[in-house]
Amino acid sequence: MSRQSQAAVERAIVARRERVNQAVPEELPVDEPERLYEAARYLLDAGGKRLRPTVVLLVAESLADVDADPETADYRSFPAEGGSVDVLKAAVSVEVIQSFTLIHDDIMDDDDLRRGVPSVHREYDLSTAILAGDTLYSKAFQYLVETGAAPERTNAALMELATTCTQICEGQSLDIDFESRDAVATDEYLEMVELKTAVLYAASAAIPAMLVGADDEAVDSLHGYGLDVGRAFQIQDDLLDLTTPSEKLGKQRGSDLVEGKQTLITLHAREQGVDVDDLVETDSVEAVDEAEIEAAVDRLREAGSIRYARETARDLIASGKDNLRVLPDNEARARLEDIADYLIEREY
Amino acid sequence: MSRQSQAAVERAIVARRERVNQAVPEELPVDEPERLYEAARYLLDAGGKRLRPTVVLLVAESLADVDADPETADYRSFPAEGGSVDVLKAAVSVEVIQSFTLIHDDIMDDDDLRRGVPSVHREYDLSTAILAGDTLYSKAFQYLVETGAAPERTNAALMELATTCTQICEGQSLDIDFESRDAVATDEYLEMVELKTAVLYAASAAIPAMLVGADDEAVDSLHGYGLDVGRAFQIQDDLLDLTTPSEKLGKQRGSDLVEGKQTLITLHAREQGVDVDDLVETDSVEAVDEAEIEAAVDRLREAGSIRYARETARDLIASGKDNLRVLPDNEARARLEDIADYLIEREY
Repeated sequence: MSRQSQAAVERAIVARRERVNQAVPEELPVDEPERLYEAARYLLDAGGKRLRPTVVLLVAESLADVDADPETADYRSFPAEGGSVDVLKAAVSVEVIQSFTLIHDDIMDDDDLRRGVPSVHREYDLSTAILAGDTLYSKAFQYLVETGAAPERTNAALMELATTCTQICEGQSLDIDFESRDAVATDEYLEMVELKTAVLYAASAAIPAMLVGADDEAVDSLHGYGLDVGRAFQIQDDLLDLTTPSEKLGKQRGSDLVEGKQTLITLHAREQGVDVDDLVETDSVEAVDEAEIEAAVDRLREAGSIRYARETARDLIASGKDNLRVLPDNEARARLEDIADYLIEREY
Repeated sequence: MSRQSQAAVERAIVARRERVNQAVPEELPVDEPERLYEAARYLLDAGGKRLRPTVVLLVAESLADVDADPETADYRSFPAEGGSVDVLKAAVSVEVIQSFTLIHDDIMDDDDLRRGVPSVHREYDLSTAILAGDTLYSKAFQYLVETGAAPERTNAALMELATTCTQICEGQSLDIDFESRDAVATDEYLEMVELKTAVLYAASAAIPAMLVGADDEAVDSLHGYGLDVGRAFQIQDDLLDLTTPSEKLGKQRGSDLVEGKQTLITLHAREQGVDVDDLVETDSVEAVDEAEIEAAVDRLREAGSIRYARETARDLIASGKDNLRVLPDNEARARLEDIADYLIEREY
């Protein structure tokens, strides 16, 4: 990816993120009971790249084949077959689902921090965090009913959202289960990643296509794009933990190894006969030193596991971009291709 | 309510409950990951009166104006305007939402028991309980997309379900908030009950009407029926805690008083100047004796609070039955009237 297209993709994401950020308080005002809605808004207001809603907007733009200026485009009344659709509502819907899963996941993992601020159950309390997540959950469905798309398209989009949410729960359940299991195969891991992470990217690409009236072939291909880039995104996350210097990463490099988290890299290494559990002996992120992490990463590199993960991610990105060929050849499609590349070239 | 119609309503409920109980494993098989789906099924399999799904089926029956035998009726392909609708899926949908709210509420209230068995977070663990609730949540939306109703009717029903879920979260949030407040007005309490409890009865009556193609007036009236009987149901629960002998109640009579729970009765008494906090001095359900409870209930009776609650519930039931006049005059409507009466005449 050239520096030029890196700059282009960042501009594309920033401009659309702004639009999503403006839409969030419009769609989710702090109503009564205030504490509930403040908690529901807390993580949404704390930031985030908004990659999924950006995918929603770009897919709609590409299908409409308009060269939209993201700063001024009328996303609230966007061209669709036989009418117009509020694609910004659909974008907020997937971001709100993402936020709900983060709130509930942080409870399950007992994580204290998220996006640089306390997790919702820490900032508020357990009950408020459960309820804030539950409220976002139903709101996401409300938004999707209200886009103004034709009823049968709305139904299809709602089915996609509902099955996606079920799959995310299944993926999170598998992830928790894996923590207490030694022998997880790489394909089991990839299935978990598909369910826990990739399906929401798939929904983000498929739902706008459903709403504006794309045919089934286009919807399926876009769904495939989301699955591919979503899986690559998670693998890149796992790689970054090992290969990015701590100061750039914003946390201790190699913390997944210290915490014994299963990733595609460690699972591959285990399959190559590496004693993964003994790679890092220090068992706290605070106490581990760079030399120990460096030695562990060297062992993983020698086992071919870093290369295996990189190649897997690259193959997925290639397949994802291939799936975009159902879209007209335009600016928005080019940005969706760039996002795919960006996901595995990003360094944080 | 005559003994004869009491028997009729019980037969009506039992026969339809059986059909719902058969449909639950069909709609929600124990898929992979097994532990997740077992937890999701746990409370559903533990029992329950199935009043809400029974309302779903009866409303559909009354609108179709067929004298259905509940044991053999083809609820999967039930007559609707211009086609047929799987009203059993809609019935399971509302029961599944009810089950999701129970699982998450039990976590928030840290309740150990539900329907005579351990609560899901006790039988399994916190993470599994959160996820089981989240899974039921999305499944309920899936079922409602799949009833086969016309797309615009399905959209309306999905909007009703989504707004209902949002309101249930708001109601639960208010309920938690009230625990730490002394001065709750009776109308604030009734609003909380409406949100936390009554809206799901309202959805149970409105959704089948939407799906089969009833007009807006009928849908609104049926929604009103649900709100009325749902509020009366909660008030009756509060009354039973005070007036039913412990052995019949299955738990210590007056336990709401011991635990300082706000109810319509205590809020009314407080408004009459009764020092509700001092009514029962013993602060554990295990240690309290009948005489102390009896004295407290006498004080509430003298303040007119028991009568006030009974009259409020009766007025609601009368209004609820009045709302049923939009339905054809048939057997199913008579059973919906009976259910309204039953809700305030039941003794457990």
